[in-house]
Amino acid sequence: MSTLLPDQLLTQMRWRYATKKFDANRRVPDEVWHVLEQSLILTPSSFGLQPWRFAVITNSAIKQKLVPASWGQTQPADCSHHVVFASRQNMPPSDVDRFLDRTVELRGGSRDALTGFRNVVLGSLKKATEEKWVNEWAKWQCYIALGNLMTTAAVLGIDTCPMEGIEPQKYDEILGLSGLGYTTCVACAVGYRASDDKYARLPKVRYDASDVILRF
Amino acid sequence: MSTLLPDQLLTQMRWRYATKKFDANRRVPDEVWHVLEQSLILTPSSFGLQPWRFAVITNSAIKQKLVPASWGQTQPADCSHHVVFASRQNMPPSDVDRFLDRTVELRGGSRDALTGFRNVVLGSLKKATEEKWVNEWAKWQCYIALGNLMTTAAVLGIDTCPMEGIEPQKYDEILGLSGLGYTTCVACAVGYRASDDKYARLPKVRYDASDVILRF
Repeated sequence: MSTLLPDQLLTQMRWRYATKKFDANRRVPDEVWHVLEQSLILTPSSFGLQPWRFAVITNSAIKQKLVPASWGQTQPADCSHHVVFASRQNMPPSDVDRFLDRTVELRGGSRDALTGFRNVVLGSLKKATEEKWVNEWAKWQCYIALGNLMTTAAVLGIDTCPMEGIEPQKYDEILGLSGLGYTTCVACAVGYRASDDKYARLPKVRYDASDVILRF
Repeated sequence: MSTLLPDQLLTQMRWRYATKKFDANRRVPDEVWHVLEQSLILTPSSFGLQPWRFAVITNSAIKQKLVPASWGQTQPADCSHHVVFASRQNMPPSDVDRFLDRTVELRGGSRDALTGFRNVVLGSLKKATEEKWVNEWAKWQCYIALGNLMTTAAVLGIDTCPMEGIEPQKYDEILGLSGLGYTTCVACAVGYRASDDKYARLPKVRYDASDVILRF
């Protein structure tokens, strides 16, 4: 397999930054976007349940509409592909059965052989629902996908800007997510940095390893 | 810069899977681990605040102790490096000042120039604290780091297993995290798959793009 050398990976991780100003004239080529999107779909999740929808916005009018719903930040309008991570609300047991159907479809075998696993997953879902953290659980999974997207983009030399400073309700309205049983949790603009984005040249601010890594 | 070709990235994303059985005799070389760890430290976070500690466990006795705290799963013992993501509890305003001090240390300039930014961050922190989602917010950031670690490992050809099925309180006790103001939220075993891990050969179960991607 062809992998990056460790130093090449580190170079890319240092190269990336939260892009404040995108080059509005550059678009991620379709074949590259396809791979980023496939990588996003391949994101690991709890029990494999994939409690998410990824809204990908390239339409100029909708991108513009998202600017006032993003505290006036212009990245949604200027980037190439604006990605919205929407997490499952109140996941019903039928989602688990749908996933198990998909498992049989792709792996073969019988549905009966998955009964033990089904009971474990349904038990966890019941507990999370009763203890009222099932929506939080779905949101955590979306953040795995966010981390994955920023890193896959970086290793392909593509810029991103993670955006928590957005108004989820307005996003939901503009994208019609609520009716689907999903809600916006975070977004990420994807594209290419403008050559005059001064933030690209600022040193990264991270704590030393000795501050954040605990060794055992 | 040296980046992966899109198809090479996709190959790696398909190659990775949640490793159930690690080769207990293989250890990630120090120079490779160093890069994974640096990539982890470089993970983006909300406002750049890095509300986390990463516990890296290589000591055999402690790794063994984590098995019963992981519902008996043996990945913590058999992997090369077991990583525990611990999120900040009740982040105090002093963490913001510490971050701003670090910003001035690395970027130069005056602390006064950051007053506007400081007020925005403290305002957000106050709101999150009053509305009781400040600990959740810190946890979301840890999940970005989890997504980042799994992807950086995959592009270097290193295996991982994300582990939500752990007992955070027991982990906190074993690692002495509570006294530091952090708590375990999730873990990830890192190393190399055993040649007989049958899960490596199972097709991945993911929904089709048409099911999870909404295009606008």
